[in-house]
Amino acid sequence: MIDQSAVKAALRAQHIETPSWAYGNSGTRFKVFAQEGVPRDAYEKVDDAATVHRFTGVAPTVALHIPWDRVDDYGDLAKHAKERGVGLGAINPNVFQEDDYRLGSVCNPDEAVRRKALDHLLECVEIMNVTGSRDLSLWFADGTNYPGQDSIRARQERLSDALSTVNDRLTGDQRMLLEYKLFEPAFYTMDVPDWGTSYAHCVDLGERAKVLVDTGHHAPGTNIEFIVSFLLHRDKLGGFHFNSRFYADDDLMVGAADPYQLFRIMVEIVLGGGLDASAGVAFMLDQCHNIEPKIPALIRSVLNVQEATAKALLVDQDALRAAQQTGDVLTANAALTDAFATDVRPLLAELREDMGIDPDPIAAYRRSGHFETIRDARKGGAAAGWGA
Amino acid sequence: MIDQSAVKAALRAQHIETPSWAYGNSGTRFKVFAQEGVPRDAYEKVDDAATVHRFTGVAPTVALHIPWDRVDDYGDLAKHAKERGVGLGAINPNVFQEDDYRLGSVCNPDEAVRRKALDHLLECVEIMNVTGSRDLSLWFADGTNYPGQDSIRARQERLSDALSTVNDRLTGDQRMLLEYKLFEPAFYTMDVPDWGTSYAHCVDLGERAKVLVDTGHHAPGTNIEFIVSFLLHRDKLGGFHFNSRFYADDDLMVGAADPYQLFRIMVEIVLGGGLDASAGVAFMLDQCHNIEPKIPALIRSVLNVQEATAKALLVDQDALRAAQQTGDVLTANAALTDAFATDVRPLLAELREDMGIDPDPIAAYRRSGHFETIRDARKGGAAAGWGA
Amino acid sequence: MIDQSAVKAALRAQHIETPSWAYGNSGTRFKVFAQEGVPRDAYEKVDDAATVHRFTGVAPTVALHIPWDRVDDYGDLAKHAKERGVGLGAINPNVFQEDDYRLGSVCNPDEAVRRKALDHLLECVEIMNVTGSRDLSLWFADGTNYPGQDSIRARQERLSDALSTVNDRLTGDQRMLLEYKLFEPAFYTMDVPDWGTSYAHCVDLGERAKVLVDTGHHAPGTNIEFIVSFLLHRDKLGGFHFNSRFYADDDLMVGAADPYQLFRIMVEIVLGGGLDASAGVAFMLDQCHNIEPKIPALIRSVLNVQEATAKALLVDQDALRAAQQTGDVLTANAALTDAFATDVRPLLAELREDMGIDPDPIAAYRRSGHFETIRDARKGGAAAGWGA
Amino acid sequence: MIDQSAVKAALRAQHIETPSWAYGNSGTRFKVFAQEGVPRDAYEKVDDAATVHRFTGVAPTVALHIPWDRVDDYGDLAKHAKERGVGLGAINPNVFQEDDYRLGSVCNPDEAVRRKALDHLLECVEIMNVTGSRDLSLWFADGTNYPGQDSIRARQERLSDALSTVNDRLTGDQRMLLEYKLFEPAFYTMDVPDWGTSYAHCVDLGERAKVLVDTGHHAPGTNIEFIVSFLLHRDKLGGFHFNSRFYADDDLMVGAADPYQLFRIMVEIVLGGGLDASAGVAFMLDQCHNIEPKIPALIRSVLNVQEATAKALLVDQDALRAAQQTGDVLTANAALTDAFATDVRPLLAELREDMGIDPDPIAAYRRSGHFETIRDARKGGAAAGWGA
Repeated sequence: MIDQSAVKAALRAQHIETPSWAYGNSGTRFKVFAQEGVPRDAYEKVDDAATVHRFTGVAPTVALHIPWDRVDDYGDLAKHAKERGVGLGAINPNVFQEDDYRLGSVCNPDEAVRRKALDHLLECVEIMNVTGSRDLSLWFADGTNYPGQDSIRARQERLSDALSTVNDRLTGDQRMLLEYKLFEPAFYTMDVPDWGTSYAHCVDLGERAKVLVDTGHHAPGTNIEFIVSFLLHRDKLGGFHFNSRFYADDDLMVGAADPYQLFRIMVEIVLGGGLDASAGVAFMLDQCHNIEPKIPALIRSVLNVQEATAKALLVDQDALRAAQQTGDVLTANAALTDAFATDVRPLLAELREDMGIDPDPIAAYRRSGHFETIRDARKGGAAAGWGA
Repeated sequence: MIDQSAVKAALRAQHIETPSWAYGNSGTRFKVFAQEGVPRDAYEKVDDAATVHRFTGVAPTVALHIPWDRVDDYGDLAKHAKERGVGLGAINPNVFQEDDYRLGSVCNPDEAVRRKALDHLLECVEIMNVTGSRDLSLWFADGTNYPGQDSIRARQERLSDALSTVNDRLTGDQRMLLEYKLFEPAFYTMDVPDWGTSYAHCVDLGERAKVLVDTGHHAPGTNIEFIVSFLLHRDKLGGFHFNSRFYADDDLMVGAADPYQLFRIMVEIVLGGGLDASAGVAFMLDQCHNIEPKIPALIRSVLNVQEATAKALLVDQDALRAAQQTGDVLTANAALTDAFATDVRPLLAELREDMGIDPDPIAAYRRSGHFETIRDARKGGAAAGWGA
Repeated sequence: MIDQSAVKAALRAQHIETPSWAYGNSGTRFKVFAQEGVPRDAYEKVDDAATVHRFTGVAPTVALHIPWDRVDDYGDLAKHAKERGVGLGAINPNVFQEDDYRLGSVCNPDEAVRRKALDHLLECVEIMNVTGSRDLSLWFADGTNYPGQDSIRARQERLSDALSTVNDRLTGDQRMLLEYKLFEPAFYTMDVPDWGTSYAHCVDLGERAKVLVDTGHHAPGTNIEFIVSFLLHRDKLGGFHFNSRFYADDDLMVGAADPYQLFRIMVEIVLGGGLDASAGVAFMLDQCHNIEPKIPALIRSVLNVQEATAKALLVDQDALRAAQQTGDVLTANAALTDAFATDVRPLLAELREDMGIDPDPIAAYRRSGHFETIRDARKGGAAAGWGA
Repeated sequence: MIDQSAVKAALRAQHIETPSWAYGNSGTRFKVFAQEGVPRDAYEKVDDAATVHRFTGVAPTVALHIPWDRVDDYGDLAKHAKERGVGLGAINPNVFQEDDYRLGSVCNPDEAVRRKALDHLLECVEIMNVTGSRDLSLWFADGTNYPGQDSIRARQERLSDALSTVNDRLTGDQRMLLEYKLFEPAFYTMDVPDWGTSYAHCVDLGERAKVLVDTGHHAPGTNIEFIVSFLLHRDKLGGFHFNSRFYADDDLMVGAADPYQLFRIMVEIVLGGGLDASAGVAFMLDQCHNIEPKIPALIRSVLNVQEATAKALLVDQDALRAAQQTGDVLTANAALTDAFATDVRPLLAELREDMGIDPDPIAAYRRSGHFETIRDARKGGAAAGWGA
């Protein structure tokens, strides 16, 4: 009933973008643990992304974070990436790591700070023009810590102004993805705390603006796949920042905490046509590998998204629809659970062999000696980390 | 700095609607505890609402739940209410208490069930035409319990269809308020789980459709006052179903769990002009008094909303704005905490004396012997309860 | 590396107890939907449990709820069960469904109510003496809805008194399992809200008292397998009430919401020796099938526990320990994820064939025509439900 | 009915300890914002604590964090404190800010790391011997990020071993307070995730070991005052780390998020005799002032605890008990809400005048010019921060 070759074709076409910052050191507010072999600049991060792509075959682009990945010549960085077999992906402006941003960036009560933040956003559009990136990926750490600290409504107006200015600067196929987050670093209000807020602004802005779903940014009990389905149905799903969480924004490897949830999200993507290139859904990772080695963790994460997608593609949609229409709760549910119970590792091993890569990317990476190579090669200089 | 007479005038103008169903027995799935003196029909519920109004002076209307409050002649019920000194308020259709609604009402996969539910909604519009109610208050228990049980996207389309049909039937100043709820009775998806979903539908529907915020219907950690501020700013806040919760939709007396949160909500109302009649914000209670006596619990609840409103009116808005604009976090926060720390009971006692009612409504109710009267008078017949 | 015959033997030895009340109608506070073919008394509930055992082979006992399953002669009920191929399991007293229990049972401020509740608990010990049940399964709906409503400390003392009296009445291999629950039906405090409270009382009481873990009774973000491991390590894990939840105590089919969590729980059971009969861990279901047909839902639930157990048994413990000891985070994690990714349905089909039952219990049940038989046979009389 | 002089005496006797680390810079993983006038070493932190005490009159000790506050001569630091009018309080070992602790400290799989951590704990006992501190305040960042990463049970055993060794080293009136935390920095398991785990270890250890309640370390929906009451009743409440939170461990000023919760906690303290010196309950702050100025934020926090305590002391305990015993839910609840509604600022102003300090500490601090003095004086050197 399921066409295996169509499944394979869909899996082959899916592209999962890795984030440059996941290759550098990261941590919690309590401690950033240093690791060996960590890249020291944007070029080496691109190299690591290329390594992940080489072993997985489905991670052909890397997202940049500005200014963490600031270089003199973005064209040169793009060329370097191309030589390594990958491309530059979404541009992520950073308007939260300077003292000026203590009370926010584009929502700051101080007009001068807002202007500074806006200038940085516009600079990032210029970078996109050079790198050819389609997506400007916006996350604002803006918010307040105490009731009354600032006007919720004034901050919304400041946000609208900034978004509108940036939106007007976009050209060609460029898009603006607006991420939302429940809390952290602000603890009383975030200025874009939930998908509803992001959606409302994106509707205001028009076609170029879409909602970005970070799977770790929700309140406990939130049904993420409902949001995904809803946005996709209304053509407002821009893409994902994938990761997983047990509690808050833990930024663990995607699929590590609740693989069934990841599967259900991918089921909604498949059912809603979100794997089609025309849907414009960007599948991006956004993770922090605080205690585990970065490259194999990213390989593992790419595989996890791929496995969830494979299982979603194995759902018998005809059986599902038939059971739904007759109100047969258990059979409809079983259409999902049967697909999820399937071991897709053999299918994916086959796919990789078709693609000319090793069927077991983790084992192949370990055997390759690559870690030892970068560990030795990257001994001088400062390791990259958040803010580096 | 604060004009006390303006504060009093605003408090006097605020109307808090009580719900007919809160006067009847209610409970959890584990047990409905019977109480004495509980009303036996819609007329007696109206009598109890009139009693609450008599002691508080600010609860002049009562919301109806259909079919729980079905009567032969709604004009006669309205006349009865008027004689008792109150009016009939929002109409709340009930499309969840029949076996047909096992898999939903307007989102049910079965077209016949959807039609039945829609007919009931339209019947409620007819009732509004008789009672003169402005608001149709819509809450759908619709949703699914298991992944795959039904199509999220198909259910959204069915919902849109029903809402659109009802909206077209509204005339004059009639409005449709669309309530959202995170979970319960459905445990996997609700079809309107959050304010974003309600907002999106209300934007589709146009001016008559507004979001209804039930203070117990959010995920843990949700900042309700942000939502209130956001919706009011965009003229999409229809009103409240007030109650309080420690965990889920506990339906406790409003203000009983977190009076500071209630205050913060009222601060946003005051700052956004939501107390003006022109804002159209309906302040309604929606509570279940499972273990405490109903009438004094409702009096207490009305007082709690009033106290929170009084404190919100006492915020020194000039000082607040000045501190916000200069980024003085502690002073801005103190503008709220100072108002909250104020004991407003003397001010409210004064207001009540101005209005010719007892300054201490709870004590006055206890002294009145009213409970003993209804306990004795209502001995025959079946006590009203959920579904009765 | 994994000994398949040992895995099969362990799976064959695992007994999963079904609850009599899951065969009757149930619902939320909003509505109990009636189903066809529902049993009308304890005898028919035993019949349904026997049916579930007949198709699964691993559900040989049924838990009773008193007074819902009150019969004149428990010896006769036990004999009936035996004839049907099953046994009577844990006895669950019910001290929450009478008006007297409005403010609690054994923690009620009224001494007479406490006495009544205690008498019922002691009556249940008498029933255990007749049925030969090992476990008295205690869940108290006791708690408060409002701050100050009652003394937390006085209620703890009343609870201690009651537990101690009951404990003293136990003989032979009888045990007392003390369940905890975060909230519902009480909304401010529960008298046994968490495992810590239950554990402290069980330590007070001594060897016969153990903690009962209901998988739906925790705050969001609680790591249940940590609790399981901790209690098992200290010989205080009495057993489980299995079900699953997305939000609160949803009582969905176990494994339906987060199968990976169920697997992790079973991993801790396997690692801690909890499958050994000597560990005394009772695997019981406690679910409400509000919208799905009861018998196939219970079959599905038994299979879900069995599948999770099978996967847990497939964890390569040597590899796991080796990776843990060397701090190889990814490899240690992979020992779990690899086992979880395995499709154990073929192994379980084989096991069932070894046991002489159909390899596909759900399909076999559907083919059997059993539902049609009970639907027709049980037309007269009142269907059993919560409280029936 | 309430004896005002007894209330004042109790308030005067209450000591609230401030933490040295709250005077230094802090932040989230996203950014530590630098502030002016921040202390540069332990001596200057002690100076700031003395300032807070000077303006509040009830904060006579300061907790130290080792190694952040490491000095050559703790006797000299104690002498310095005494000269400034304060004393050194609890000693907080830090076993989470070195690369060695990536996989834990006393629970680490590596014996050498465990030994290192244990040595640091024992070093802290030595420091206590010099400073005369009563309390060793233990918080372990230990835990795991991924299922399977380490053995839950082995880690518990390692924890027991370390705690036992430290406990044996305590002498005189020295105590060990064991803090628990739901999550962060570990995201899958924490080794002491909840009060139950801490309690179980403290029972094992005996009289010197008590549970430390950090008000920001619980799952959503946890009733903290229940835990406080329970522990106090069993003589296992060691004290508090006060702060407040909307979401996770936000470390905001205590009372800033939910002042009614803080009041309810203090009510349980008052009802259980926890204000008596003999109860040994330590009232300590543990906060991070990321965006607001530190000294006034700490003054505000001390005042918030004091106001909550004052309100708790105003509860009419006779009326409360009488209503509880007769099951009068609303009157019992009103005993709390009436006390909470009282404006205690005049009473506290009076108390301060009795004590010879300014009735409005915040205003007095602002007028004092102290901030300008330290801002200018502390221009050279590195500002203290987490880890500094």
